[in-house]
Amino acid sequence: MSRAANGSQYSLSELVGRFGGEVVGDASVRIAQVSPLETAQPGHLSFITNSRYLRHLVGTRASAVIVGEDLRDATALPRIVTGNPYAYFARVSALLNPAAVVAPGISASASVSPDAKVAASACVGAGAVIEAGAVVGERARIGAGCYVGRAASIGDDSLLHANVTVYHECLLGRRVIVHSGAVIGADGFGMAMENGAWIKIPQVGRVVIGDDCEIGANTTIDRGALEDTVLEEDVKLDNQIQIGHNCRIGAHTAIAGCVGIAGSTRIGKYCLIGGSAMIGGHLEIADRVQISGGTTIPKSILKPGVYTSVFPVSLHEEWLKNASVLRHLRDMRERVRVLEEKLKDRKEGN
Amino acid sequence: MSRAANGSQYSLSELVGRFGGEVVGDASVRIAQVSPLETAQPGHLSFITNSRYLRHLVGTRASAVIVGEDLRDATALPRIVTGNPYAYFARVSALLNPAAVVAPGISASASVSPDAKVAASACVGAGAVIEAGAVVGERARIGAGCYVGRAASIGDDSLLHANVTVYHECLLGRRVIVHSGAVIGADGFGMAMENGAWIKIPQVGRVVIGDDCEIGANTTIDRGALEDTVLEEDVKLDNQIQIGHNCRIGAHTAIAGCVGIAGSTRIGKYCLIGGSAMIGGHLEIADRVQISGGTTIPKSILKPGVYTSVFPVSLHEEWLKNASVLRHLRDMRERVRVLEEKLKDRKEGN
Amino acid sequence: MSRAANGSQYSLSELVGRFGGEVVGDASVRIAQVSPLETAQPGHLSFITNSRYLRHLVGTRASAVIVGEDLRDATALPRIVTGNPYAYFARVSALLNPAAVVAPGISASASVSPDAKVAASACVGAGAVIEAGAVVGERARIGAGCYVGRAASIGDDSLLHANVTVYHECLLGRRVIVHSGAVIGADGFGMAMENGAWIKIPQVGRVVIGDDCEIGANTTIDRGALEDTVLEEDVKLDNQIQIGHNCRIGAHTAIAGCVGIAGSTRIGKYCLIGGSAMIGGHLEIADRVQISGGTTIPKSILKPGVYTSVFPVSLHEEWLKNASVLRHLRDMRERVRVLEEKLKDRKEGN
Repeated sequence: MSRAANGSQYSLSELVGRFGGEVVGDASVRIAQVSPLETAQPGHLSFITNSRYLRHLVGTRASAVIVGEDLRDATALPRIVTGNPYAYFARVSALLNPAAVVAPGISASASVSPDAKVAASACVGAGAVIEAGAVVGERARIGAGCYVGRAASIGDDSLLHANVTVYHECLLGRRVIVHSGAVIGADGFGMAMENGAWIKIPQVGRVVIGDDCEIGANTTIDRGALEDTVLEEDVKLDNQIQIGHNCRIGAHTAIAGCVGIAGSTRIGKYCLIGGSAMIGGHLEIADRVQISGGTTIPKSILKPGVYTSVFPVSLHEEWLKNASVLRHLRDMRERVRVLEEKLKDRKEGN
Repeated sequence: MSRAANGSQYSLSELVGRFGGEVVGDASVRIAQVSPLETAQPGHLSFITNSRYLRHLVGTRASAVIVGEDLRDATALPRIVTGNPYAYFARVSALLNPAAVVAPGISASASVSPDAKVAASACVGAGAVIEAGAVVGERARIGAGCYVGRAASIGDDSLLHANVTVYHECLLGRRVIVHSGAVIGADGFGMAMENGAWIKIPQVGRVVIGDDCEIGANTTIDRGALEDTVLEEDVKLDNQIQIGHNCRIGAHTAIAGCVGIAGSTRIGKYCLIGGSAMIGGHLEIADRVQISGGTTIPKSILKPGVYTSVFPVSLHEEWLKNASVLRHLRDMRERVRVLEEKLKDRKEGN
Repeated sequence: MSRAANGSQYSLSELVGRFGGEVVGDASVRIAQVSPLETAQPGHLSFITNSRYLRHLVGTRASAVIVGEDLRDATALPRIVTGNPYAYFARVSALLNPAAVVAPGISASASVSPDAKVAASACVGAGAVIEAGAVVGERARIGAGCYVGRAASIGDDSLLHANVTVYHECLLGRRVIVHSGAVIGADGFGMAMENGAWIKIPQVGRVVIGDDCEIGANTTIDRGALEDTVLEEDVKLDNQIQIGHNCRIGAHTAIAGCVGIAGSTRIGKYCLIGGSAMIGGHLEIADRVQISGGTTIPKSILKPGVYTSVFPVSLHEEWLKNASVLRHLRDMRERVRVLEEKLKDRKEGN
């Protein structure tokens, strides 16, 4: 494994100086990298978020660990005690693994329209295309091979990795990260049948993405038909997600890979949607709903909670047996009803 | 919301002059844009396709609406009465929201083989690559960063948005639209196991796409192994669909996002396939079959109808209870059978 | 159908000279192409792997066929008898359909860092970008529009089709094939919630891909958070697959299209995973496990076998009936228990 660590080291006391928390044990221990408990080396800071993993704490070679109040005394290692060990780890990791610095400027092989407005502090990679009327904000980075369509806007400090496509007029906020292969603003899937053939319905809305969103690789977000498709701020989308036209995704919602959301559905804030879930169109999903991986949602969910719709896995032969009964479940219920009726009759008959 | 309206306005009488239908009320009302009932503004034309939405008709600010015969008298607003309001709306929207005009010509940064044949009326975007033997038809538009492989052919009036990949020898018909990130003609998934390792089977068929098809963003259609993979005319594919090698999709079939179709399956004409459905390989799906979103199809479907295979969603705790019983469904059926037997014995015994 | 056959012909005796097996019948028959039994023409070699397809053997126009020992006498046609007809067919097809030869060299429109190391025998397509510190091995082919990030490495004889993205530091072995739109090494989906907002966790691991792997179109493989994401040798991934961070996929495992594998899961060797399956995070899947298409795997599988979790498909009205009962399955089991209890009481009461 190679690490992009920047060679800096920080003592535990320096870390709590920056990020808060309390050191228990030797505060002068120096940290060069973060690692999981199992693979940590001397000089590494590890973390534990759940007492289920205490066995890994015992054998770790880490020089120090981040723990919650509940595990303050679970180790003799030097440790930082904090209310949120996982977030603390994230902050230390970002300190030790800063993103590569990229020089501002427009690559000689990029095609930037004279009618586009690219901040002098921005950078535009090789072969990227910026169409007329587009805006690229301060310190924004447009990766190699990206396409930013007519009148689209990329906010300050946003990052488009290589080969991202943003269609015309779409708006990305500040500090948005978009991974390679993502397509923002393709036409929604709208058509009308007439005389046995399809007529295309123009998709004239936009995609509007709030500040601090992250969009995974090969994820697609369709432009609205007449209104906009909207991601509120701090929405996190994993890879290969499909968001249909006119959807609205609430702030701080996180969606795992391969999820499909059909058109005109509104997802609340702080939702967590598991991988490969499928959410139908024209639905309303309340705030703080959690949807399990692989679950299909065909109707609105109006209350917070965890929702699931997965057929339990088993060996194929077992599955065959149960599935064949499942096809006749209504009949079986009727048979049970008949049995109940008969026993009741008997009792009465007796 | 921003609108790409072209600034033109049309009176209702002008619209029925172009598209047919009958005006009821003031035919001189001028229309600048189309909108849903709820968000329409004065100057907008809206539409209603279902009496379920009559409540939206009551409060709309639209200047006029498109209605079917059944709703001819459902409003006092000026209205166009037509047999197919949704298709009518599509036609008006296309009139008011024409696609941006792109000048013909080949971008200076495109790489076009001297052995390719690009119509003078076509346009090739920045950084696009057209390989030897490829043909780009009249008025076709090849977006920035597209790749059109050796001997591939793009029909007249077709549109490849930015960053589309078309492999060698694939054929796209006329008026085909392909959205960004789509990959047409990658190798099908074919290999043979020999001595504990895989041998690749050359994929020497093509992808052949009929006239008037639309292919969504990041959709993939694999080339055939020995035969071709075929989309007949007017097939509509949403985003992130995977079509395996040797498939044939019938004319006018529409497939929603995230659907996977395994190799060598034939889908009929006028099918409607819901999002995230999965269709196995070597199957036959009849004409006019509808498949619900999230449904898995492991066997051929030979009759039209609506087919579904979704586990019903519930709160996770409810699901846990039912799922645990489901694992023993066969046993439960046996218990019911035993009960029936016993009651029968009793009766006979009595 | 067009064929990329190279115009060469081989007699059956020449073929067994190269690939082994035994000719039965006229060994001088000359073969120009391979084809399925149903569509074969004179001059074609076909194959049969299963006696289920004997009916196709009867009417075939093929000049010869490849058969297993069991079907040695199933036809009067000249034939090659071999232990593994499908693998034999693969080898003959590769002989008759060789990949197009591409001249080495770097396209004038590619952007190759002076600090990258590209073998003289390699070829880099139009508009491709190779960043500083990257290595492109002997005879490797980097397609048009590909992006190879800082310090990434592409092994000898590997092939990146057009528009592939490889992020910084990722390592691809020898003879790896990557199809268009694939994204190797985007950030894994890692973040921590703090004070109501997400903090990004740097993803500092790499993707490491073994020799002889093939990666399908628009497939995404995320880089590890702290460790690497690893594909061992000869792993075959179809299109539109998502592999989460820190996963490890065992050698010779084949995964069909649209599969999602969440983070930190380890898949064994020689597994076969059906299309659209979904495998949860932090799981262990043993060697030689087979997972049916559409199956959701929420827990580890420690024994070889075929596993399935698909709701059986039916007409929608049938489904509605059974699904409504399914929601009350636990209740039904209780009713059966009560019935059993009553009958038992009776017996005892009698």
